[in-house]
Amino acid sequence: MERKKVAVLLGSDSDWPVVKAACETLETLSVPYEAHILSAHRTPDKAAAFAKGARANGFGAVICAAGMAAHLAGAIAANTTLPVIGIPMKGGALDGLDALLATVQMPSGIPVATVSLNGAKNAALLAAEMLAISDENLAEKLDQMRADMARQIEEKEKKLFGE
Amino acid sequence: MERKKVAVLLGSDSDWPVVKAACETLETLSVPYEAHILSAHRTPDKAAAFAKGARANGFGAVICAAGMAAHLAGAIAANTTLPVIGIPMKGGALDGLDALLATVQMPSGIPVATVSLNGAKNAALLAAEMLAISDENLAEKLDQMRADMARQIEEKEKKLFGE
Amino acid sequence: MERKKVAVLLGSDSDWPVVKAACETLETLSVPYEAHILSAHRTPDKAAAFAKGARANGFGAVICAAGMAAHLAGAIAANTTLPVIGIPMKGGALDGLDALLATVQMPSGIPVATVSLNGAKNAALLAAEMLAISDENLAEKLDQMRADMARQIEEKEKKLFGE
Amino acid sequence: MERKKVAVLLGSDSDWPVVKAACETLETLSVPYEAHILSAHRTPDKAAAFAKGARANGFGAVICAAGMAAHLAGAIAANTTLPVIGIPMKGGALDGLDALLATVQMPSGIPVATVSLNGAKNAALLAAEMLAISDENLAEKLDQMRADMARQIEEKEKKLFGE
Amino acid sequence: MERKKVAVLLGSDSDWPVVKAACETLETLSVPYEAHILSAHRTPDKAAAFAKGARANGFGAVICAAGMAAHLAGAIAANTTLPVIGIPMKGGALDGLDALLATVQMPSGIPVATVSLNGAKNAALLAAEMLAISDENLAEKLDQMRADMARQIEEKEKKLFGE
Amino acid sequence: MERKKVAVLLGSDSDWPVVKAACETLETLSVPYEAHILSAHRTPDKAAAFAKGARANGFGAVICAAGMAAHLAGAIAANTTLPVIGIPMKGGALDGLDALLATVQMPSGIPVATVSLNGAKNAALLAAEMLAISDENLAEKLDQMRADMARQIEEKEKKLFGE
Amino acid sequence: MERKKVAVLLGSDSDWPVVKAACETLETLSVPYEAHILSAHRTPDKAAAFAKGARANGFGAVICAAGMAAHLAGAIAANTTLPVIGIPMKGGALDGLDALLATVQMPSGIPVATVSLNGAKNAALLAAEMLAISDENLAEKLDQMRADMARQIEEKEKKLFGE
Amino acid sequence: MERKKVAVLLGSDSDWPVVKAACETLETLSVPYEAHILSAHRTPDKAAAFAKGARANGFGAVICAAGMAAHLAGAIAANTTLPVIGIPMKGGALDGLDALLATVQMPSGIPVATVSLNGAKNAALLAAEMLAISDENLAEKLDQMRADMARQIEEKEKKLFGE
Repeated sequence: MERKKVAVLLGSDSDWPVVKAACETLETLSVPYEAHILSAHRTPDKAAAFAKGARANGFGAVICAAGMAAHLAGAIAANTTLPVIGIPMKGGALDGLDALLATVQMPSGIPVATVSLNGAKNAALLAAEMLAISDENLAEKLDQMRADMARQIEEKEKKLFGE
Repeated sequence: MERKKVAVLLGSDSDWPVVKAACETLETLSVPYEAHILSAHRTPDKAAAFAKGARANGFGAVICAAGMAAHLAGAIAANTTLPVIGIPMKGGALDGLDALLATVQMPSGIPVATVSLNGAKNAALLAAEMLAISDENLAEKLDQMRADMARQIEEKEKKLFGE
Repeated sequence: MERKKVAVLLGSDSDWPVVKAACETLETLSVPYEAHILSAHRTPDKAAAFAKGARANGFGAVICAAGMAAHLAGAIAANTTLPVIGIPMKGGALDGLDALLATVQMPSGIPVATVSLNGAKNAALLAAEMLAISDENLAEKLDQMRADMARQIEEKEKKLFGE
Repeated sequence: MERKKVAVLLGSDSDWPVVKAACETLETLSVPYEAHILSAHRTPDKAAAFAKGARANGFGAVICAAGMAAHLAGAIAANTTLPVIGIPMKGGALDGLDALLATVQMPSGIPVATVSLNGAKNAALLAAEMLAISDENLAEKLDQMRADMARQIEEKEKKLFGE
Repeated sequence: MERKKVAVLLGSDSDWPVVKAACETLETLSVPYEAHILSAHRTPDKAAAFAKGARANGFGAVICAAGMAAHLAGAIAANTTLPVIGIPMKGGALDGLDALLATVQMPSGIPVATVSLNGAKNAALLAAEMLAISDENLAEKLDQMRADMARQIEEKEKKLFGE
Repeated sequence: MERKKVAVLLGSDSDWPVVKAACETLETLSVPYEAHILSAHRTPDKAAAFAKGARANGFGAVICAAGMAAHLAGAIAANTTLPVIGIPMKGGALDGLDALLATVQMPSGIPVATVSLNGAKNAALLAAEMLAISDENLAEKLDQMRADMARQIEEKEKKLFGE
Repeated sequence: MERKKVAVLLGSDSDWPVVKAACETLETLSVPYEAHILSAHRTPDKAAAFAKGARANGFGAVICAAGMAAHLAGAIAANTTLPVIGIPMKGGALDGLDALLATVQMPSGIPVATVSLNGAKNAALLAAEMLAISDENLAEKLDQMRADMARQIEEKEKKLFGE
Repeated sequence: MERKKVAVLLGSDSDWPVVKAACETLETLSVPYEAHILSAHRTPDKAAAFAKGARANGFGAVICAAGMAAHLAGAIAANTTLPVIGIPMKGGALDGLDALLATVQMPSGIPVATVSLNGAKNAALLAAEMLAISDENLAEKLDQMRADMARQIEEKEKKLFGE
């Protein structure tokens, strides 16, 4: 069975320097993905159409990055029952609290899986964890990544404080 | 020339006890209006269709009330160049700060005219002020309302502190 | 293939009146689940052990509800690569902003899929959406639920504003 | 019929680098405007006099930019029933939350149409949308601007991700 | 020399249950006062006129209570160089943080002496402290009040914990 | 009668670059002052002693600048019934919201006249306004300063927008 | 060796219903304590004197509960090098965020060990943990209390979800 | 009797530039310490094991520094009854308010002694104060440090304002 794709949607091209970490993480895990710029406010029809067709087009999860009154994740979630992951972007009011609240405080019935402010890598890991529910190979890769991460911390400790 | 209508849109029927003040104010000013329940997340297609047809259907302004990750005003504004007025509803996180930020912090290009939390009466007055730009009779009614309001304060002062 | 289970973990029995909505939603969708009280701070070993064994024990996703310095979701996520969904509970400081930030602001490498404050139903829907990536039958149920939800809004509109 | 003017009022000359975007947008749309520095606190009489005479002097809407305890929009709105648009300026406390709340949280009876922090362009678009209620030519220009904006996003996508 | 009066201004009659504590405290201290309802937004001309005449009319300080986008203290301060004391009222957004910021964050040149949220008694004490700079008798009364307050705390301690 | 002095107290020498504006303003107004570094936490006895002797030593008002858990103004106010003005310093948590709340939210009985974050000039003007209650010459200087300020704004407007 | 006492200080008798939980916890652990009402602002000399004599008078730690601009813990910490534990009380602005920040954001050199809002029981446990550094018997009691707590959670789980 | 050690735990090596001030302060006071990098999320087993063995391994207190959803202090406190001191690190959302709330808002039963944002020096002083409860020599050193601090302020005052 072919692995499903992850969609990585940006509300603005200015989000790319942060969001590309999501794409890099998906590549590391050999999870196929597509990246697009789609705005809930500036290209609402395209955004809705993308969401409506996403499952049929082979996507398994959708990552949406947006700032300020961050509606993109909600607008996508309104049009699909695929899991939608929201990355609130820093930089609006209150260090991005506007984007965080606009992403996470979804009404009952339409969930958005929100990660931390600018949390692009975690969004990708979360998408991979979702696909890995029924993909043992991917689950092993995720476990391996965790083990590597723990080892890196031990190496940093040795470097900082000696053995 | 016939006066244009104001649309009063609620994200949820639970907003009605607050939002009906907008309808009452419009009635007092003899401004025609229509009220609907439309959700950016639960009925996204109907919301978009309403917005796209609003100008042609005789509307001059659209009032949108929504709480939490309040996307309704933004979703309507994304689909019309009529002025859209957002009422952030209290009751989510931080006394409604979530709804306020989600309504007001719109990206460049798609404005939403945001009024105070639960500010239904002010939303109606603002819509009337917009229509009154080219409607002297309505402008006079608004001026009259202001004069009445000042008089009421004087009466309250007399009642509280005597003359 | 048998459907995987969802774990519903409560940091405290006082969270149950809110969290039971998650269990009810999972039942409606015929998604099997287990509910437990596990505290990141009061029963840390049991929480870690549960997380470590979760995938092998047939779980596909874990929902964690906790308030204040809400560490449960993070503590579970630290010990499994199953997707972990966090429900920040209202009631601590700032209407639950403490729980929201403690749940969503996870460090790079260990994601938690955060839903809205007290968003128990959405947590269950999100878990179901994750399982539905590879479960067409469940995906259809979710789509059906959305259609029902839209119909209910239309009925509420008729009741409130007539036809 | 001649198009009405928009007033662009600054609480301080230090606001000009942000606010000039409003003037540029009005010029692009061929909406006539006048810019002034008027302070609710430092030149209160001039501010009140301007507001009282605004409708008679051919204005259709007033844009007010102010920071911190941002009273300018409210002080103008107190003296006219023209629609008043408030731009809260960043830079006081909490990234401008002080200005946002001081602008948007107006008491019942005196609305201010608040846009996002530093949202000068959106303030101009909102003013234009108000005038366009009874000005088809201007409405078309606004629709055209939206179409251009959507096209720019498509171009940015092509540039970033190829076709 | 006759003692100067303190003006106690309310933005709304609904503020009276809180603000009357200011009047009671002034009475206890035998400081003459006048209370009025004056709104920066609903009766701007009367508010400005009151402020302009306040010094000539025998006032020594002005207390202003207002909520939400609390402009009253600032509007009065803009029209007099008498010291103006602002009481931000609870009840708008964020437990009154809107009123607090709108009262305290005044621009350079126009100070407002802000007391705590709903701090009516402290506003009166502060006004009395200002008058007492050149009024030894009043200063003694204030010192006496402090001594009484300390004694009350000792009595409360005895009542709660015994001797 | 000799004019009373204003005390300008700094919680830390690092506050001086901001606070010196208070001293400069007092000099411009020919109000005598003394500046000291006194810490509520590091030199509590000296701070208390200063406050207790302040009225007898010819002071008419005390300005206190402090950041973070800004206790200096409250510690001084606890030991004198002279009016105490608090300047909350920016730079701790939340852009200085910690200092603002720690300065303004004083308990009933012990007021602190709080000015804006870093509002050193306004603190000095407020102190001068207090002294001017019984000092006509100083009141005239303050009025003159206001007139100059208004004239400066007119000049800035001419420079920016022409005549 | 006799166990040292813990001081439990209340800024106001109104804090007692919350703070008594600290005393009850100390009793359960057989840690001797004394409770007093002492105010940083209303009885500053008594508060300073208590702190200065605390170590000599047999105290090992001091717990201070205060709300709003909560200075008590800081005022005590300024006058002793005994460990001072601060309980920020809910009920001022922003659900007690004012008290939390005023308690925790102490300047370098004068620490306050801050516990959660209204966290009276945890303050007592923390004081006991401090004394238990050199008191094995007390350490065992604390470990026992933890074990009891874990058992209670298991019992609650059985009651809620069966075995 | 040998002095007990203080553990200084960092959630990430990037915290070291701030946290090293804690180690320097402990060295000045001749308090033995060990520093480690341990992450509640990336090395949860090592963190739990460290905490469980800390008392037996000669530690008297544990300092934990972590940012964002700062769980380290809580995760350590869950596994020991030694006093645990939390340093919330700046740099996540809202200037570190996320870390502050995640550290201080611990549930009843598991206290964390929280110091100010980035308050590494105060964390070390607090740990020393805890050890000094039963260590007169250390208590004297702490008193001496306070006296030095007061003297430094006097010198700064002389330098800034002369004698």
